Amino acid sequence: GSAWISKHLELVKWILMFTIGAMTGLVAVFIDFFVKMLNGLKFTTVDNYITPCGQDYTCLMVPLLILIAFNAVFVLVASSLCALEPIAAGSGIPEIKCYLNGVKVPHVVRLKTLIAKAVGVLFSVSGGLFVGKEGPMIHSGAIVGAGIPQFQSITFKKLNFNFPYFRSDRDKRDFVSGGAAAGVAAAFGAPIGGVLFSLEEGSSFWNQALTWRTFFCAMSATFTLNLMLSGLYFKEWGHLNIPGLIDFGLFQCSGGDCNLWTAMDLLIFIAMGFVGGILGAIFNAINKSITICRLRHPLFKRKSVRVLEAVTVAIVTAAVAFLAAMMLGHCKPLSVDSSGGVNISGSVRTYFCPDGEYNDMATLFFNPQEEAIKQLFHQEGAFSLSSLAIFFGFFFLLSCWTYGSLVPSGLFVPCLLCGAAYGRFVGNVLTSFLNLSSVYSGTFALIGSAAFLGGVVRMTISLTVILIESTNEISYGLPIMVTLIVAKWSGDFFNKGLYDIHINLKNVPLLEWEADRKLENLLVSDIMEKKVCYVFLRTRVHSIIDILKTTTHNAFPVVSNYRNLSEDDRPTARTGWEDIGSHSMISSNAVDFPQQTIQQIHRHRTDSGDSIPNGDFPHRSDPSSVVFHGIVMRDHLVELLKNRVCFMEHSSSSTRPEMDYENLTKDYPRYPNIHEMNLTDINLNMMIDVSRYMNTCPYTVSPTAPVSKVFNLFRTMGLRHLVVVNPLGELKGIVTRHNLTEQYLHHHMHQQTTGQAMRQTAYH
Amino acid sequence: GSAWISKHLELVKWILMFTIGAMTGLVAVFIDFFVKMLNGLKFTTVDNYITPCGQDYTCLMVPLLILIAFNAVFVLVASSLCALEPIAAGSGIPEIKCYLNGVKVPHVVRLKTLIAKAVGVLFSVSGGLFVGKEGPMIHSGAIVGAGIPQFQSITFKKLNFNFPYFRSDRDKRDFVSGGAAAGVAAAFGAPIGGVLFSLEEGSSFWNQALTWRTFFCAMSATFTLNLMLSGLYFKEWGHLNIPGLIDFGLFQCSGGDCNLWTAMDLLIFIAMGFVGGILGAIFNAINKSITICRLRHPLFKRKSVRVLEAVTVAIVTAAVAFLAAMMLGHCKPLSVDSSGGVNISGSVRTYFCPDGEYNDMATLFFNPQEEAIKQLFHQEGAFSLSSLAIFFGFFFLLSCWTYGSLVPSGLFVPCLLCGAAYGRFVGNVLTSFLNLSSVYSGTFALIGSAAFLGGVVRMTISLTVILIESTNEISYGLPIMVTLIVAKWSGDFFNKGLYDIHINLKNVPLLEWEADRKLENLLVSDIMEKKVCYVFLRTRVHSIIDILKTTTHNAFPVVSNYRNLSEDDRPTARTGWEDIGSHSMISSNAVDFPQQTIQQIHRHRTDSGDSIPNGDFPHRSDPSSVVFHGIVMRDHLVELLKNRVCFMEHSSSSTRPEMDYENLTKDYPRYPNIHEMNLTDINLNMMIDVSRYMNTCPYTVSPTAPVSKVFNLFRTMGLRHLVVVNPLGELKGIVTRHNLTEQYLHHHMHQQTTGQAMRQTAYH
Repeated sequence: GSAWISKHLELVKWILMFTIGAMTGLVAVFIDFFVKMLNGLKFTTVDNYITPCGQDYTCLMVPLLILIAFNAVFVLVASSLCALEPIAAGSGIPEIKCYLNGVKVPHVVRLKTLIAKAVGVLFSVSGGLFVGKEGPMIHSGAIVGAGIPQFQSITFKKLNFNFPYFRSDRDKRDFVSGGAAAGVAAAFGAPIGGVLFSLEEGSSFWNQALTWRTFFCAMSATFTLNLMLSGLYFKEWGHLNIPGLIDFGLFQCSGGDCNLWTAMDLLIFIAMGFVGGILGAIFNAINKSITICRLRHPLFKRKSVRVLEAVTVAIVTAAVAFLAAMMLGHCKPLSVDSSGGVNISGSVRTYFCPDGEYNDMATLFFNPQEEAIKQLFHQEGAFSLSSLAIFFGFFFLLSCWTYGSLVPSGLFVPCLLCGAAYGRFVGNVLTSFLNLSSVYSGTFALIGSAAFLGGVVRMTISLTVILIESTNEISYGLPIMVTLIVAKWSGDFFNKGLYDIHINLKNVPLLEWEADRKLENLLVSDIMEKKVCYVFLRTRVHSIIDILKTTTHNAFPVVSNYRNLSEDDRPTARTGWEDIGSHSMISSNAVDFPQQTIQQIHRHRTDSGDSIPNGDFPHRSDPSSVVFHGIVMRDHLVELLKNRVCFMEHSSSSTRPEMDYENLTKDYPRYPNIHEMNLTDINLNMMIDVSRYMNTCPYTVSPTAPVSKVFNLFRTMGLRHLVVVNPLGELKGIVTRHNLTEQYLHHHMHQQTTGQAMRQTAYH
Repeated sequence: GSAWISKHLELVKWILMFTIGAMTGLVAVFIDFFVKMLNGLKFTTVDNYITPCGQDYTCLMVPLLILIAFNAVFVLVASSLCALEPIAAGSGIPEIKCYLNGVKVPHVVRLKTLIAKAVGVLFSVSGGLFVGKEGPMIHSGAIVGAGIPQFQSITFKKLNFNFPYFRSDRDKRDFVSGGAAAGVAAAFGAPIGGVLFSLEEGSSFWNQALTWRTFFCAMSATFTLNLMLSGLYFKEWGHLNIPGLIDFGLFQCSGGDCNLWTAMDLLIFIAMGFVGGILGAIFNAINKSITICRLRHPLFKRKSVRVLEAVTVAIVTAAVAFLAAMMLGHCKPLSVDSSGGVNISGSVRTYFCPDGEYNDMATLFFNPQEEAIKQLFHQEGAFSLSSLAIFFGFFFLLSCWTYGSLVPSGLFVPCLLCGAAYGRFVGNVLTSFLNLSSVYSGTFALIGSAAFLGGVVRMTISLTVILIESTNEISYGLPIMVTLIVAKWSGDFFNKGLYDIHINLKNVPLLEWEADRKLENLLVSDIMEKKVCYVFLRTRVHSIIDILKTTTHNAFPVVSNYRNLSEDDRPTARTGWEDIGSHSMISSNAVDFPQQTIQQIHRHRTDSGDSIPNGDFPHRSDPSSVVFHGIVMRDHLVELLKNRVCFMEHSSSSTRPEMDYENLTKDYPRYPNIHEMNLTDINLNMMIDVSRYMNTCPYTVSPTAPVSKVFNLFRTMGLRHLVVVNPLGELKGIVTRHNLTEQYLHHHMHQQTTGQAMRQTAYH
C-alpha cells in the first residue's frame, strides 16, 4: 500500500508517465477514429448527391443544403459543449502555456474540460470548420497528465482514491509537461518535438530525470496510437504502421538530376519566410480585432450568441467551399503524374467536371485538411495558379474568423494548409516561369507551410523539430529552420504570435523567456510591492480572519516585531516541526540582542504607531522594521481556523492544539473558502501560532539585487512570489509575477531612467 | 567599430554562432577527408600485397608486417601529438562535460589542444586503432566555440584582436555549448541530438534564445559539412547529399509481410538492453582498472612509456585483426542477398578465401568501422555465429585497452560496432533457431548497438535522439529508448558510465543532475565550509597580499566588523560605483544601530581576539559575527595591487586613486600571478577600499535552507561558490562545488543521521 508507494516514488512516476502517455494516445485514437467516421459519413452522403448532378447547378443545390445541414448540426454540438465549459474552446495551447509557465488558470485541467474538448473537437473538425485537432489533442494530453496522478476528479466527486503523493505545484507541472508532450507526440508523431515543446513552454530548468520521463511518456503515446490505429485501420494488431496522425508523405526525387533542395534555394526560402511572416502578422492582426470584439462587445457576453456565431461560421464555410469549387475550380485531365511515388490519387475529386477530368479546387475543399496538405506537397503542377490564390484567400479569411469562436479549434493544420497553398503557388511560379525544375517542387509547398505557420504562432525550436519529424527527412532541417527564423523576425516586427496575443488579451501575467536587456539597471527595490500583507508569528484569530477575508493572496510572509524576543519565543526543549519553526534566526544569535533592544522596540512602537507587539493584527503598511521568518499558505491558515487550532494567550504550551501535515492538507485540492466558513463560535481573541505551519526558508532576495536576477529565479524555479528581505533580515517588500510582466517593467523602467541616475552593474 | 558591436550584441552572437558552426563543420571535413585518404592509402597498399598470396600463410607475413608498420607509424604520430598536449588524449567528452557543468579544466579549450586533437585523431583512426573520431570532433567543436568569440589565442599570442565582449563565464559557456552541439551535429548528422547534448551536459536552465542559437550553430555545421563533402566526394558543389559522417543506411523491409519491428519484439529488446547493460558494465570495470593503473603506476608518469603503450596497442590490434581474419574467418559464397536495398557489397573483403567467396571476419576487420557497422546492420545472414562471437570478443578487449591510452580516441563508433556484432549475433540466433523471419533482422543489430553503447556511456536523451537521427527512421524511437533505459538501469546496478568513471578518477567536483532524495534532511549549515577567508571593506595592503599568497580561492567575501559603522563609512554624496557599494544595508537602517552597539563591538573584540576593526588583516577563523557585504574576485584584487590603487588611512577621499572596470579587466583572460608580482615598492600599511570593486548582491543562502535547494541553485545558475549568510546579514560560511559532490554529501549525511534527529521538511 502506501508505504510501498512512498518507498518507490520514482518507479510510480514512471508507471504514471506510461499511463498518461497511453491514455493520451487513446484519446487521440478516439478523436481520429470518430473524425474519420463522421467525415466519411458526410462526404459519402454529399458525394452520392453531387455525382449524378454533373454540372447542373440547380440539381447541385440539394447536396449544398445537405452539406450545410451536416456542418451546422456538427458545429452546433461542438459549440454547445463549449458553452457548458467555455475554457474548452480554442486550441488550448495558450492555456497550457500559462499553466506550464506557472500561472493558475481555473478549470483548465478538469475532467469536464477534457470531455468537452475531445468530443467537441471531433464535431468541429467533422463540421467542416477550418480548424485542426492537434491543439486540442495537446490540451487533452495535458489534462490527462494533470488528472491521472491525482486519482480523483473535481467533476465527478465519487472518483476519489486516496493518493496524496504528487500534489506540489512542481509535481503537478511535471506531469502536465509529460501529458502535453504526449499530446504533441500523438498528434504529429513527433515525440522529440513534444519533449521540446514541454521544455520550451515549461518554466523549469533542465532536469534530466524529468526530461527522460517526459520523453518516455511521449514515446508511449506514439506507441499506443500506432498500435491502436494499425489494428483499427489495417486489422494488423501488434504491427506498427502509423507513426503519427499527420503524415506529410515521402519527399523523394524521381529524376537523377533532381534534388530536394540546393544551397542556392536558401535565398528563395528566406524570401518565402519573410513574406510568410508578414502574412502571419496580417492574420494575427485581423484575428486580434475579432477577438477584442468578442471579448468586449456586450452581445458576445451571451453564450447563445457565441453558439450562433459558430454555427454561422460553419454555414458560411460550407457555402463558400461548395460554391468556390463549383464555380471557380479548374478542370484538369485525370492522368496526373504523381511524382514522388506517394499514392494520393485516391483523394482527387472529380466534382463539377466532365468525365476523365478532376476539379482542383474541389480536391482541396472536399478532403480532410491533412489530405489536402499531402496533395499540395506532392501533386506537382496539378493546381492552377488562380485556384491556389482563390483557395488561399478564402481559407485565410475563414480560418481567421473561426479561431477564437466557441468551438475547440486547433491552429496548426489550417496554417499548414494555408501555407502549403502559398508555397505551392510560389513553387509553380518558379517552375513555370523560371524553369527551376531541378528542385523538387514539393519543397516549396513545405517551406510555404513552415513560413506561414511560423508567421502566425512564432513558436520556434519545438515547431522546427515537429516539422522535421513530420516530414521524416532530416535534410529539411536547415531550410525549415531558416524559414522559421526569418518568419519570426519579420512577423515580430508587426505584432506578437497569435497564442501570445490571446494570452495578453486575457491579462495573464506570463513571464517572457528572458529579462529585457534594458532592465539591467533596474533594481528589485524599484519594482517590488512595498505594501505587504503579513502576519505575525503569533496572531490573534480576528486578525487572521480579517486578512483572509480582505485579500486574495495565496501566501503571507510571517514576521515578528523588530528584535522582539521575549523568553516565550525562545527555543526550549521542543521537537519535531518546532525545530524548523520561527527561531532559526534566534537560536544562536539570541545572545546578540541584549536588553537594550527593548528601548528600540519602544521607540519603534512610537514611530510606526500601529504596530503592537505580540501580533495583534496583521499589517498592510510599509514593512519598515519587521523581521521576516517564513511564508505561510492561505490554505493552511484556513485549515487552522477550520480546525480551531488556536489557544488562549497565556495557556501553557502543552495544552495548545496542534495539527500534523497530513490533516492540514486533507482537503486538497479544494480548501474551504473563508467566506463560506462558519466562524461564529470561534473566540476572536485567541491566538494562532503559525510558526509551525510555515516554510522557513523560501527563496528571498535583497532589495539591491538587479531585476534580471529575480526574473531568472522566477523563470527557473517557477516561483509565484518572492519575498524581499534586506541583509538585516527585515521584510522590505514582495515581488510577484505581476511585477515582472513586460508592461509593468517598462512602465517602471521609464520612471526610473527619468528619475534616477544610471547605476553601474558591471560586477553583477 | 565597438559602438556598433555593443549595440548589436544579439546579432553579433548569431554571426559568431554561424561562424562556429561553419568552422566546426570544416574541422570535421578536414578530419574525415584525411582519414579517408590515409585509410585508402593503407588498405590499397595492404590489398596489393594480400591478393596475390591467396591462402599462402608465409607469403601473407609481408602484408601483415606492412599493416603493422603503417599502424605503428600513424599511432606514433597521434601519440606524440598527445604527448605535447596530454589533454588532447581521450574522447574529450568528459572534459567538455566538466566545462559545461561549470568546472574549469586547464588547457581544455586551447588552440594547441584543437590542433593536437584534430590532427591526432585522424592518425589514430587511420592507424587502425579501435577508436572513433566522433568524440574528438565534439571536443574540437567546443574548442572552436570557446576560441572564436574571443578573437585571441593563448597559444599564439600574436592572434589578438581587441574584442572584449563575451568574457563572462556564462557567455563563454554558451558559445562552448554551441560548439559542442555543432560537433555532434557534424559527427552524426544529428543537429537536434547536438542541441540536446549541450542541454543535457550544460548546467544552465532552458534559455530560449540560447537554445535557438545553439540549434542554428548545429545546423550550420551540418550544412557546411554536407556542402563541402558533397563537393569533395561527388564533385557536385552546391548540392547536399551527405547529411552526416555516420550513416546507418536505410532500414527498409523488402517483403510484404515484413516489419521493422512489432509490439512483441519489445520484450526481446528489453532483454537485449539488460544484457547490453551488463556487458557495458564489464567494459567499464575493466577499463577502470586499466585507467587506475595508468594514473597510479609510476612507470606511466613518463610520457615516453605512454607513447610506447599506444604504439604497442596499435601493433597488437593490427596483428590480432590480421591473424583472426586469416585463421578464424569463414568463407562464404559471394552472391549475398543484400536485402534492404543498401549497396554494401563494395566493402566485402575476399581475402584468404577461394575465388567467388568472401571472408566474413576480414569484412569486419579490414574496413573502416562505419562500413563494418553498415555491414552488420544490413547484411542479413552473411556472418557466421562463430565469427561474430570471436569478433565481438577481440574487439571488446582491444577497444577497452585502447580507451584512455595517449591518443585521441572516441568511444561511440567502437561501441556501436561492438554492439552491432552482439545484436547481429542475437538476430541470427533468433532467425535461425526460432524462425522469427517476419522482422527485419537488422533491427536486432541496431538494438544491440544501442544496448552496448548505452551500457558503456549511459548517456540518455541525447544518445536516443542521436541514434534516431542517424537511422533516419522515427519509428525506431521507442525500441531504442526502451533499450537504452534498460541498459542504463542494469549497468547502473554495477558501476557508473565510462565518462563519469574517468571524471571521478580525476577528482573533478562535478555535480549530479539532481540532489539525492536522501539529502532531504540535510541543511546548509551541516555541509558548509565554516572557515572562510574573507577581506574587510577596507583592508591593509599587507593583509591582501597575505591572503592572496596563502590561498587559491577565486573569490573572497567582503565583510565589515559587526555593526561597526563609523561616520566615515556612511554614504555621503558619492556617485557612480560607490552607489552600489558597501552601504546598501547601512543607508536606511543606520539609525537602528545606536551607540550602544559600540559595547558589543568591544565585547566581540575580546571574544574573538584576533578581529581588529578597520580591517587590519583578513581572517580564516569562524566568521561568527561579521556582516557580509559582497564578493570580490581574486583577479580584481591582484589588479588593484598591480595598479597601486591604495591610499593612506587618513587621506581625504578625493585624493584616493580609483580604477574603472575597463582597466580592471584589461589583462583578461590571464591576470598576473600574485607570486610573480614585484611588490617591493608598495607601502604595506596603505589601505585598499574593495567596496567599489565587489559584486554587492551575489546569490546567498541561509544556513537553515535545505541542501537540495542549494544544489538546484548551483546546477541551474552554474555557480562555483555560494555565500551562507544568516537572516541578520552575518557571514556564516561558504558552499563550494566540493561541498556538494556525491561523496562529500554522503559522508555528511551519515554523520548527520547518526548525530541528529530527523527534521520535518514538509513545508519546503
